[in-house]
Amino acid sequence: MARVAGRSAVVGMVGAGQLAQMTHQAAIDLGVELIVLAASPQDPAVRAGAPAVYGPPDSRAALFELAERSDVLTFDHEHVPTDLVRELAAAGHRVYPAAAALEHAQDKLLARQAFSAAGYRVPPFAQLPDDEPGVGERFAAEHGWPVVLKTSRGGYDGRGVEVVRDPSELSEVLGRWAGRQVLVEAHVPIAQELAVVGARTPSGRWVAYPVVRTTQRDGICVELAMPAPVAAEVADLAQSTARGIAEHIDAVGLIAVELFLDTSGDLVVNEIALRPHNSGHATIEAAVTSQFQNHLRAVLDWPLGATDLRVPAAAMVNVLGGPDSADPAGHLPAALAVEGANVHLYGKAPSPGRKLGHVTACGPDIEAALTIAREAALAVSGSSPGCVSRSGEAPPHSRRDL
Amino acid sequence: MARVAGRSAVVGMVGAGQLAQMTHQAAIDLGVELIVLAASPQDPAVRAGAPAVYGPPDSRAALFELAERSDVLTFDHEHVPTDLVRELAAAGHRVYPAAAALEHAQDKLLARQAFSAAGYRVPPFAQLPDDEPGVGERFAAEHGWPVVLKTSRGGYDGRGVEVVRDPSELSEVLGRWAGRQVLVEAHVPIAQELAVVGARTPSGRWVAYPVVRTTQRDGICVELAMPAPVAAEVADLAQSTARGIAEHIDAVGLIAVELFLDTSGDLVVNEIALRPHNSGHATIEAAVTSQFQNHLRAVLDWPLGATDLRVPAAAMVNVLGGPDSADPAGHLPAALAVEGANVHLYGKAPSPGRKLGHVTACGPDIEAALTIAREAALAVSGSSPGCVSRSGEAPPHSRRDL
Repeated sequence: MARVAGRSAVVGMVGAGQLAQMTHQAAIDLGVELIVLAASPQDPAVRAGAPAVYGPPDSRAALFELAERSDVLTFDHEHVPTDLVRELAAAGHRVYPAAAALEHAQDKLLARQAFSAAGYRVPPFAQLPDDEPGVGERFAAEHGWPVVLKTSRGGYDGRGVEVVRDPSELSEVLGRWAGRQVLVEAHVPIAQELAVVGARTPSGRWVAYPVVRTTQRDGICVELAMPAPVAAEVADLAQSTARGIAEHIDAVGLIAVELFLDTSGDLVVNEIALRPHNSGHATIEAAVTSQFQNHLRAVLDWPLGATDLRVPAAAMVNVLGGPDSADPAGHLPAALAVEGANVHLYGKAPSPGRKLGHVTACGPDIEAALTIAREAALAVSGSSPGCVSRSGEAPPHSRRDL
Repeated sequence: MARVAGRSAVVGMVGAGQLAQMTHQAAIDLGVELIVLAASPQDPAVRAGAPAVYGPPDSRAALFELAERSDVLTFDHEHVPTDLVRELAAAGHRVYPAAAALEHAQDKLLARQAFSAAGYRVPPFAQLPDDEPGVGERFAAEHGWPVVLKTSRGGYDGRGVEVVRDPSELSEVLGRWAGRQVLVEAHVPIAQELAVVGARTPSGRWVAYPVVRTTQRDGICVELAMPAPVAAEVADLAQSTARGIAEHIDAVGLIAVELFLDTSGDLVVNEIALRPHNSGHATIEAAVTSQFQNHLRAVLDWPLGATDLRVPAAAMVNVLGGPDSADPAGHLPAALAVEGANVHLYGKAPSPGRKLGHVTACGPDIEAALTIAREAALAVSGSSPGCVSRSGEAPPHSRRDL
């Protein structure tokens, strides 16, 4: 790109949701112009003022237009065909993460196989070929019911993941998912769900934030606490696992590695995302450099920012659309009355289960921070009690979450 | 304004500089749409994505268009004729601060008179009527040379302020300023320059940040340290003075009160601004709620956010255009390599002395924070050594600064 006065770089981001919105806020500080590939002017990042190219994420024309206007191309979601990502790179565009890395965030089977082959502990799993019935039942016989069925591609926020307790549930789900690649996994007895968010540059420089504890409900992340209340050895292993996976797949930009700490104390790799991640939202207030700024720094091959926390502890609670589709924007003042809460709204039209915003709070410990963040999230959701978690309990299994 | 899904309010801001840019970043989190009155699409807030009405700040048509699109109107500078502000209010638009308050930020003579009459200590001053020569000389004979001459209106960043050492310098300046209202002030022997940034709602709710120490060079703020290294009694008096003045003039929104701590330990009110202020920039990283978010909350009459610091100390150093007009956007990676620095660029075309950005750092004490912020500001300015202060010394007198 030509140098424009006052502008340090142009980054193209495929996707214009809340992750792009918050990346846009971070880009402003750096003099970076963030151009987003959006579906509509109502997308959060576009409402927040990011210039946009319009089109679906599988449009070759839209992707090339975005790439041609940008110094580097990156993503706020995984729904981009990797053959197009390869084409963009072959045409000389810088795209981070590259297609080969991105596939590990798109395809659960590929990821399980790759991480397992590289020596990382993953849940026992097997592919369920369409043309070979009985594999799921034999797997369950070996590992015990219930088992977890997952579509290899396309699932998020709990979609594409089912816990099945017996052969009839298994075949019901497989019937529904006919024609899709499905894997079966052992049901891991989870003590805690953890995540590590790190950033890696093209030349391999690496920083990571403290390990967070995430809490999922119905497959959707509802809250997180940072730093996770785990032993130092567990935190160290989580950190080295995240870094090792990032290096193994040559990730560039942010990577979020989601892990299970099982009830026997073992750390198991669940899934990865290669973009800013819900698990990192509290870094805006709690860390020296936010995940969004570090994503930009990483894909631009700039020095990475310090990931230390400024505070002893932080918590984040998502604001999810309730069954009555109340608009959190209409309940904002009640949330702002909660002392110490930092409310972030995404400007989305409300619908049940949709991520409409989040609340972060910092405090002397994670419980104090959680109390504040939960109270404000409850207030901004219009006090629909079903909209935020009040318990720290983890459900039986976790899924990818934006 | 009609309720739009995902949008909590619409705020119109007269002005589209860096203060509006940072207010826009804060507005995104709250689902607030910030519409700015801009001179050009290159204005910082417009580049950052705020929708704009174009026109000069004294255009009745532009101001009314902005007001009609907004729930409430506010300002990122003081250059708006108060008769138009009164017209807007008379037409039923909510405008904060109101014209009567705003005049105290526009007119130094009025402010001195008002604050003095209300019992606040101000520097000894006198009006210099055009038609009555000799007043300045008599004032200097009473208070001692040098004296400070100020134009009552229109000065900022050192413009409209002159320190004169003798009658010939005095008459030279008065000749240059013929036709303008001028006041003469005693030259206060300054130990430290301080500022208090607070926020006040229409109903009189009030919060304030810890007192900051500001350092000026050639009348431009170059750096600040928070909390100011002053005795608790001084900090308390600064806080109560700021609150008292805000109440006295019925300020709504942010108010920055600049004070001198003189060498005999007395606190003297210098000037006020009724908007987000350079003295509050470090609140983005260092405080629970930034000044920009609190300005929005205040003018919208929402609950005000906590002003506590998350960190022991913070410092901010401005990035000013150097004589070579180097573009900080071109030197950004060098600044990002300074661990712990938070760089903010304003996307402006560089010119000598222009505020192009700032760097904030937090630390265990103000000296540690200043060291980091100065190093990064020096790096981003392209290492022009004249562009950032390396000393903590205050020059003899201070002026209003955005």
